[in-house]
Amino acid sequence: MIGAESLVRSLLASGVDTWFANPGTSEMHVVAALDKVAETRAILGLFEGVVTGAADGYGRMAGKPAATLLHLGPGLANGLANLHNARRAASPIVNVVGDHATYHSQYDAPLESDIIGFARPVSGWIHRSMRSDSVGADGARAVLAAREAPGQIATLIVPADVAWGECDGPAPALPHGGPAPVGGAAVDAAAEALRSGKKTAILMRGDVVHGRGLEAAGRVAVKTGARLLCDYFVPRLRRGAGVVPVERLPYFAEQILDNLSGVQHVVLAGARPPVSFFAYKDSPSWCLPEGCAVSVLAHPHEDGAAALEALAEALGAAEAQAAHAELKIPDMPAGALDVLTAAQIVGRLLPADAIISDESATSGLGLSAYLEGAQPHDILSVSGGAIGMGIPLGAGAAVACPDRKVICLQGDGGGMYTLQALWTQARENLDVTTVIYSNRAYVILMFELMRMGISTPGAKAMSMLDLHNPELNWVSLASGMGVEASRAETTEQFADQLQSAIQAHGPRLIEVII
Amino acid sequence: MIGAESLVRSLLASGVDTWFANPGTSEMHVVAALDKVAETRAILGLFEGVVTGAADGYGRMAGKPAATLLHLGPGLANGLANLHNARRAASPIVNVVGDHATYHSQYDAPLESDIIGFARPVSGWIHRSMRSDSVGADGARAVLAAREAPGQIATLIVPADVAWGECDGPAPALPHGGPAPVGGAAVDAAAEALRSGKKTAILMRGDVVHGRGLEAAGRVAVKTGARLLCDYFVPRLRRGAGVVPVERLPYFAEQILDNLSGVQHVVLAGARPPVSFFAYKDSPSWCLPEGCAVSVLAHPHEDGAAALEALAEALGAAEAQAAHAELKIPDMPAGALDVLTAAQIVGRLLPADAIISDESATSGLGLSAYLEGAQPHDILSVSGGAIGMGIPLGAGAAVACPDRKVICLQGDGGGMYTLQALWTQARENLDVTTVIYSNRAYVILMFELMRMGISTPGAKAMSMLDLHNPELNWVSLASGMGVEASRAETTEQFADQLQSAIQAHGPRLIEVII
Repeated sequence: MIGAESLVRSLLASGVDTWFANPGTSEMHVVAALDKVAETRAILGLFEGVVTGAADGYGRMAGKPAATLLHLGPGLANGLANLHNARRAASPIVNVVGDHATYHSQYDAPLESDIIGFARPVSGWIHRSMRSDSVGADGARAVLAAREAPGQIATLIVPADVAWGECDGPAPALPHGGPAPVGGAAVDAAAEALRSGKKTAILMRGDVVHGRGLEAAGRVAVKTGARLLCDYFVPRLRRGAGVVPVERLPYFAEQILDNLSGVQHVVLAGARPPVSFFAYKDSPSWCLPEGCAVSVLAHPHEDGAAALEALAEALGAAEAQAAHAELKIPDMPAGALDVLTAAQIVGRLLPADAIISDESATSGLGLSAYLEGAQPHDILSVSGGAIGMGIPLGAGAAVACPDRKVICLQGDGGGMYTLQALWTQARENLDVTTVIYSNRAYVILMFELMRMGISTPGAKAMSMLDLHNPELNWVSLASGMGVEASRAETTEQFADQLQSAIQAHGPRLIEVII
Repeated sequence: MIGAESLVRSLLASGVDTWFANPGTSEMHVVAALDKVAETRAILGLFEGVVTGAADGYGRMAGKPAATLLHLGPGLANGLANLHNARRAASPIVNVVGDHATYHSQYDAPLESDIIGFARPVSGWIHRSMRSDSVGADGARAVLAAREAPGQIATLIVPADVAWGECDGPAPALPHGGPAPVGGAAVDAAAEALRSGKKTAILMRGDVVHGRGLEAAGRVAVKTGARLLCDYFVPRLRRGAGVVPVERLPYFAEQILDNLSGVQHVVLAGARPPVSFFAYKDSPSWCLPEGCAVSVLAHPHEDGAAALEALAEALGAAEAQAAHAELKIPDMPAGALDVLTAAQIVGRLLPADAIISDESATSGLGLSAYLEGAQPHDILSVSGGAIGMGIPLGAGAAVACPDRKVICLQGDGGGMYTLQALWTQARENLDVTTVIYSNRAYVILMFELMRMGISTPGAKAMSMLDLHNPELNWVSLASGMGVEASRAETTEQFADQLQSAIQAHGPRLIEVII
């Protein structure tokens, strides 16, 4: 057996059976090894941002890592922006980067670069395998590192000679400890705050907003009147009918402060205190109300769900009945197609247990209102703020959950960064409906320009924000990559097309002109 | 005046009048400042790899830097692969990266990342501006650093509060020294080698293969019988009728060794000894024939053209007549459309003084043969080996040289990485004809798989190399971005479409089915 096969088999033994790949010459032995292992699935992306974004979506939904396969430093570099998002989402990813043979680096061939330097800002763990004999064990350790709570990117660099060299065979999985338990003192402190009579909110992130922790939080809320919150960039949130409702904090600093006005104590469960996404003159970066106290129930690496259950118990709420959102399907809207009526239609037609990959940006206005009573679903957001994530993330989520419909809500500006993911949707026949909000502009930047105090931008500045000249045609773009596509200019057209896409299986794209 | 305007004006004072931009919120004051400076041109790319690739093409052709404008760490990350190519090409680029306000970084907002860490592997110079008062002077130093011979990437990080803060005004240009002079000893050593009677080759890279150094090299060759060579990944080569012919070394190690067989001495002018692009089992990395001596006439940062002129003088060849390639326009080919007949048609129709952006990869077979007697032209190659460079590079070259036709020869696999550059071509009405070689495969990887000794790849391995399912439709993709496009399946169709595109002004795309 060669090192490459040992690596593929070791990852499989550790539970990693899905690879998202954009390989080159230095990864050819790994590609050949994927052939030999029937249980391993290999999915090609035509650009590395597709590969890493899909691995993020897979990690968020599968709760275990996929592997990437990237081609040296430049291949890794192309995947870094979505690895940044994945790092912020605490997604588990085994990030495999091929490299020149160990003895070849010294010649500084054109593709030679500082792979570790590129990897460091996004990786929680980095290792360069040096021997075919140990690359399997390195792979097992990479999986363990990726799964370290709450999840992180483990970058494993595999030189070509390590991949092609002979070795004994794969390594077994290493024991995985799970998240750290939360001590009683943290639970007691949170319970005390919640009993104090102060206006209290529980700010949550991670597993606790889509798993059993959410039920416990709901019991605490019913018992104490505490608000349940998550931040705007929450990686994955369970929402809709039958789910304990969590309020998502707004985007802008002044809106966050407004929202939190009167809150005297914030209990953190896997989250950090809210901050402004950007800095603005005369606007705060730190978004807790003055004098608001903070206590940490669970750090991100700790078992927040168990902590919330212990908290409910400590408050005598173990048997309380949490409130759940009621099913409230929006009516079919009248009037023109705009961001609000589009959101209403999405809320109306959303099938049960759908996954929403949300990079709608300014076009997402109104989604929350129409989705809180919709069929239950998971919504995934641009956790790191780097646009170009929505389409790949949806593809990865669809691979992780083949029986669930994925709806990708995508602004046109951000969609252009990684549109190549549509091709992967077509090749793998992924059950994703992509809605492109086509406003032909970086509308968010028009807002931001005004917020920066630049109220009368000239033609040159506007040309940096306006995408009308020429207009993008997303029906052509999607068709060019093998995805069936249509354009909607009225509410009726959008409703018909979305209904049709949801009833069918496989990729569809709808360009919504707004 | 605010810092952002001081920066834009300082760069202009230092000769940088062109910005390739994909800005975000933290760059809005720079965007607004671009408005105020009429002499500065701002060109939007819909993805950062477009921005950096275009800046590379501009730098190679203009011989001076453009500025980029990128959005924090993830924006820089998306541009890194083409910055890797630019670093290998020694292109001068002022790489401006916006950042959070200095006081905001501490809050670790979602977009916060290690910008310097991302920048380090590609940058020759990095600085984070800390005061509005000095950002203009920082800009002037960045230009100086970018122009440091032979050219490099100078990354200037501009926090938002540095951009929006008040300051006194712009900084003047700093004196630029030019390349270092070559000492007489190096010239004497090269002259001695060339007089020794040994079989000698001059291996060249940089200015010397497209400027006056090439004429001097031609005189030396006529006088001494030395071969004139450049490496396969030469950033810019002047070629065609009336030009001193330079042999481009082949791609694979064994071909290079074959080509150099019998050479006893190599004189380096701006180049380094040839090495294999990748390592292979049983194949050498170092590609000089055994026993071949090396002497350095000029290091990359030194004035190679002056050194070659001094060398000609030292050899008594100052008045010699260099040989120039004769005009030999290829005939119109008969037979089917394939990589050879396509190359013949390109050579036949190439207009005088065209610029070729070459990422044809395996489809470029035969180009050299048909182009050496074609109309004189400059050809730009994928200097760092990172694919996804051809379309952006051609766009940047067209901005630098608006009176010259740009022909972009692009493989379909590599083209998908940065296809968004077509939109910029359309918006700016750039005079670029893009030829997509549509073989629906990573053919180079099929070769490489075989070279790696994997002669019978299975279905899963082949699915990583084959792009047939689904087929990309480049006519749809280009049309979706506003570029007029057509498909050629016969030699007649390709010749007609190429002729039409060359006669018109503005962007066109031809999908060549091979």
